[in-house]
Amino acid sequence: MSESTAASQRLAFFQNQLQNAPCAAEEPKIKTTMESMTEERQKATFDVRELTYFLDGGEKFTKIREKFMMELERDPTFRMYDMYDVTKDQIRERTMEKFRTIVHYVSAEPVPIFTMRMQTISLIDPGFWTRFGVHYGLFFGALRGSATSAQFSHWVSKGALALNGMVGCFAMTELGHGSNVAGLETTATFDEASDQFIIHTPTITATKWWIGGAAHTATHTVVFAQLIVRGKRYGTKSFVVQLRDTHTYKLMPGVNIGDIGKKMGRDGIDNGWIQFTNVRIPRTNMLMKHTKVSRAGEVKEPPMAQLTYGALIQGRVAMVVDSGNIAKKAVTIAGRYAAVRRQFSSNPHDAQETKLIDYAIHQYRLMPLLAQAYAFHFTGVETNKLYDDLMDKLESTQPDDETMGEVIDTLKETHATSAGLKAFCTWSTLSAIEACRQTLGGHGYSAYTGLATTYNDFAVHCTWEGDNTILTLQSGRYLVSCYREALAGKSQPEGVSYLNHLDTLLNLGCGVKTNEEILNFDVIQEAWGVVTANVVKKAGDDFEVSLKAGMSPEAAYEECSQARLAAAKIHSYGYIFRRFAQAVKSAPEKLQPVLTKLCLLYGLYSIEQNAGFFLQYRYFTPSQMDYVRGQVNVFCREVRQEYIPLIDAFNYSDYMINSPLGVYDGNIYEKYFDQVKRQNPVGGEHPYLPLIQSLLRRNIEDDEPLEDDDEDDE
Amino acid sequence: MSESTAASQRLAFFQNQLQNAPCAAEEPKIKTTMESMTEERQKATFDVRELTYFLDGGEKFTKIREKFMMELERDPTFRMYDMYDVTKDQIRERTMEKFRTIVHYVSAEPVPIFTMRMQTISLIDPGFWTRFGVHYGLFFGALRGSATSAQFSHWVSKGALALNGMVGCFAMTELGHGSNVAGLETTATFDEASDQFIIHTPTITATKWWIGGAAHTATHTVVFAQLIVRGKRYGTKSFVVQLRDTHTYKLMPGVNIGDIGKKMGRDGIDNGWIQFTNVRIPRTNMLMKHTKVSRAGEVKEPPMAQLTYGALIQGRVAMVVDSGNIAKKAVTIAGRYAAVRRQFSSNPHDAQETKLIDYAIHQYRLMPLLAQAYAFHFTGVETNKLYDDLMDKLESTQPDDETMGEVIDTLKETHATSAGLKAFCTWSTLSAIEACRQTLGGHGYSAYTGLATTYNDFAVHCTWEGDNTILTLQSGRYLVSCYREALAGKSQPEGVSYLNHLDTLLNLGCGVKTNEEILNFDVIQEAWGVVTANVVKKAGDDFEVSLKAGMSPEAAYEECSQARLAAAKIHSYGYIFRRFAQAVKSAPEKLQPVLTKLCLLYGLYSIEQNAGFFLQYRYFTPSQMDYVRGQVNVFCREVRQEYIPLIDAFNYSDYMINSPLGVYDGNIYEKYFDQVKRQNPVGGEHPYLPLIQSLLRRNIEDDEPLEDDDEDDE
Repeated sequence: MSESTAASQRLAFFQNQLQNAPCAAEEPKIKTTMESMTEERQKATFDVRELTYFLDGGEKFTKIREKFMMELERDPTFRMYDMYDVTKDQIRERTMEKFRTIVHYVSAEPVPIFTMRMQTISLIDPGFWTRFGVHYGLFFGALRGSATSAQFSHWVSKGALALNGMVGCFAMTELGHGSNVAGLETTATFDEASDQFIIHTPTITATKWWIGGAAHTATHTVVFAQLIVRGKRYGTKSFVVQLRDTHTYKLMPGVNIGDIGKKMGRDGIDNGWIQFTNVRIPRTNMLMKHTKVSRAGEVKEPPMAQLTYGALIQGRVAMVVDSGNIAKKAVTIAGRYAAVRRQFSSNPHDAQETKLIDYAIHQYRLMPLLAQAYAFHFTGVETNKLYDDLMDKLESTQPDDETMGEVIDTLKETHATSAGLKAFCTWSTLSAIEACRQTLGGHGYSAYTGLATTYNDFAVHCTWEGDNTILTLQSGRYLVSCYREALAGKSQPEGVSYLNHLDTLLNLGCGVKTNEEILNFDVIQEAWGVVTANVVKKAGDDFEVSLKAGMSPEAAYEECSQARLAAAKIHSYGYIFRRFAQAVKSAPEKLQPVLTKLCLLYGLYSIEQNAGFFLQYRYFTPSQMDYVRGQVNVFCREVRQEYIPLIDAFNYSDYMINSPLGVYDGNIYEKYFDQVKRQNPVGGEHPYLPLIQSLLRRNIEDDEPLEDDDEDDE
Repeated sequence: MSESTAASQRLAFFQNQLQNAPCAAEEPKIKTTMESMTEERQKATFDVRELTYFLDGGEKFTKIREKFMMELERDPTFRMYDMYDVTKDQIRERTMEKFRTIVHYVSAEPVPIFTMRMQTISLIDPGFWTRFGVHYGLFFGALRGSATSAQFSHWVSKGALALNGMVGCFAMTELGHGSNVAGLETTATFDEASDQFIIHTPTITATKWWIGGAAHTATHTVVFAQLIVRGKRYGTKSFVVQLRDTHTYKLMPGVNIGDIGKKMGRDGIDNGWIQFTNVRIPRTNMLMKHTKVSRAGEVKEPPMAQLTYGALIQGRVAMVVDSGNIAKKAVTIAGRYAAVRRQFSSNPHDAQETKLIDYAIHQYRLMPLLAQAYAFHFTGVETNKLYDDLMDKLESTQPDDETMGEVIDTLKETHATSAGLKAFCTWSTLSAIEACRQTLGGHGYSAYTGLATTYNDFAVHCTWEGDNTILTLQSGRYLVSCYREALAGKSQPEGVSYLNHLDTLLNLGCGVKTNEEILNFDVIQEAWGVVTANVVKKAGDDFEVSLKAGMSPEAAYEECSQARLAAAKIHSYGYIFRRFAQAVKSAPEKLQPVLTKLCLLYGLYSIEQNAGFFLQYRYFTPSQMDYVRGQVNVFCREVRQEYIPLIDAFNYSDYMINSPLGVYDGNIYEKYFDQVKRQNPVGGEHPYLPLIQSLLRRNIEDDEPLEDDDEDDE
């Protein structure tokens, strides 16, 4: 017998032993976490890949996203596994390193493709997304929106587009002033003698605050300041100011900048504060597309308030899209963990503990969030389309075109819709992230499992680009005005089309005869229509009462703010359900059954969460509401069957998920343990041995007082 | 004229100039933030100090708390202003430094006073509170609860009480096992030959995980492991195992320990993982108060399952108290900011912007949270009393006393109540912290304003010492069993006394005739009684249906879990309202008007939030519910009048608040700016100048390809 034959026989023997070992001992078969995951995948009744294509808008786009994921994963500056342990200073520097890679793509890729790349990056490294966005979205966006074409060319030639020779930031908010841009204190006073503006920070509260990129990155900024010419104030305008020497990075004279320091999240972005002390800039640094100041100090204001909504809408739409994407990440982590984590046993005959996901309450915690992630995804897609259509219209319509009125109406609608949706989707997603984090039990508190950081990074979405409460009130204000127009007989656009049927909806009452009728898109849509019409009517009527009592419109709006807030929230629920239902109807036939279940779950769960309104306005009877509650549980169970395939369809790579508990193969414990050990190697010296020794080995007798000696001195 | 007279005249002249300056220019008077705060204080209709005494349980206790605050503020190891910027390693070391101070007090102060000190510390440094609590609460608590008296004396003599010569930790949870203690995998196998136990971690999922103090602090641990004697398993018992040499801090043979690393919050505590590889300990290291193993390997199990509820209840009660305290901190920061921050103007004639707190929507965001903080405070006080009474009873009752049955009933009730309240109060407080953080607008995202860290530190309360969902289900299970007992005619204890009037409550229907009747403690209490009875009935009936369908009780409980969860939540609302109302009735007469408003606001707001149930069970009609909604706004406005005095009554020093936006004097902007500058000094070198220079000054031509030369080589 040759040596190699003997070796292979020994090998075969051991393999045999290993394979037979469990059977020989007749121990019950315990499934590994990977096996537990595999069995979930076998439950799919649809083709996961087909659903991915549908979500991405076609196979072509799926391929592009996969290309992005691979490129980022292999880029060493984009390594993410150690991000939870780096300090603020390290993360800042690393974020800067990434600029070079991305600058390469921004010049090579068409805008829609580059936008998709940035959407992918936002999921991986939201801090970088912001820091890069500050230059391109805010600084460059301000040039595009407010500079004359000569000014625009000038700054492009200086390197504003190529990000070569200059980096910009956007100095709007101040320490004492956020949402109210008209109330900013920084001044830009025209000095006729020198043909310059003097940019000045008059008080501590006028200090520019939260300025992304200011602390270490930007050489230039667009400053929002009060234009003052010959002693007269003309309101807030924007000015380009150089902050630093573009070679040495030393501050320019009169410019004082500091670091805002540690934040809740997104530490990759170097937010700073800026004070200007009589900083002089050429007159032509004022962005003069709208208001102009001549050499002689003549101020020419635009004939009508400029249409600057466009830029605002873009940011908000991006956040609706980001909400859907981040929500998908959160449910992926929580969902995969729930498929393989076992706890207690609901069946005493089972040798193994029960999967979390097989508990009714866990289904109730997760399945509606999965449905919501789908709902937000489709809403994001539709809102993007609305925005693109609007931009096309704006670009192709001249101020004196007949259709301009219609375009303005669309603009108003899109503005209000995106404001309401931005607030609604970011709030809901923030809660969803926290809810998902909590489903991880104790492990949700580890930085490495990802959702704590996701929460901290995401939270700022509720405040920036319009505080959510203020945006919701704006949306409510729009609804009140639409309601009043509808009462006056003016037909309302698609987003608020329910207002065109007020008479019917307000008098519909209990619209359903049998319980089973409820499980229907049209019925749920009608239910939301009735409730929304009523809640909007409530706000509109409150407003009317205040007006009749002699209040100014502003005061009347203030008086009905709680009603406006409620109206806007309920309106968003109905709007999102319609978008979801519409997307399901447009889906490939084979995908419809599973998507229909998801959509019904979303609709029923949302109704349950707002039961008060449906009962208040008597669309449902109490017993129908009981049925709805019951059906939420039924649909949770239904969706649970295929929830892993539904998660897989999001097609997020393990690199993007960046959580050992959300890995595709289900091997959660090994990967989690590996991650913890890699980031916190065992062994080594005790970090504060003398300190702990001196505590543990302290001489208690030292603490004892001198014994009191009652005897007199002798 | 003497020189000093001239100097004083000059001084007077300048002072006069300064004082007159604003008048001379006839500019409208703009209030400083401090003046804005002062005017709020003048609105108090009650004596703030008297309310503080009432909240603290008397002047004596207020004085003690003030002494604590001063001692901590002046202790250099407890400096907190720079905590938002220290690294995980620095915070770990600093947390250890604090041990020496506190060890001093633990030996000098009576337990109730020391408990108050720890409550104060929990607000200032929750990480330290936990790290210290691991030794005294968990390790030492386990000795007290599970060691025989001889064992207990042994460990005390080793230094367990004085924290001298040893520090303990508590090794219960494992990587793969949290809530299900019975499912732990670590084994403790008796080796008769050596009279030792062999402690062993058989798999990766059996690795002890999240063990507070294990990474760097503990020399000993109490391990939960499966007792195996002569091949037979006896379930999970506890064992003392030495982890490290108490002089060198080197690991003991067979012990492998690592750091769990970065967490969402509370980084001051060094959570670790532990693997035991056949670690041998003396048999007498098993804690044998209940189960005993003799030298000969005989296992003697206790006659009845041990009453270990006590320790669990204590931790949960502490978290109810902590919820109230942290909620007060959050509303103090948000409330004081809202009193001095101004934004937009609701009145065009006003020279100054409007205070946030004067907006209806801001009142709606904050006032219910203020009322809730008071509600949780009083609930904490009452729950503490319940716990103390229970402990007294348990200590004074012998197993064969006639009253033992009654004591067991009280134990069960307190256990279920504290479980439900722990979950309810920690969930609500976590949301309240986030809501308060968002009211700070952008500034809420700064680490220095405090609420981001407060959120991250507090979040773990929702998971540890019993996952909130599991606790809520337990509480719901208790309610179902009480409901079934009540149906069978057994009288139910105070906490669920509404079940003694099921017939009346279930058939009461719309209990109110005029709207005004609703503004009454008894009516609100009855309303909650009716709704709770109905929701509990729903869970009980669902359970019954499943039983009748042939399910096991376990399966039937699982089947009605969503109904149980709802029942427990609604029960907690009603319970907390009763505690609040009861406290108001016991308050000094002069405090009653303002506390009554707060309590009504809490009651009405809670009803509004759960409108669906009140309409579903027809306690209120839709038009009454509209009235409730309206009254919530009315009471928000009412409470707003005195909300700063109501916040001041919490009596938290600026040091405890540790947020420049929550300072007592209202000087928010200066203090915030100072804090940011102290932590991020201006000037100095650019942290990554070459990196940014190479990006900004890159030679674009380098990127350009060789021009294609179509000519043939010659």
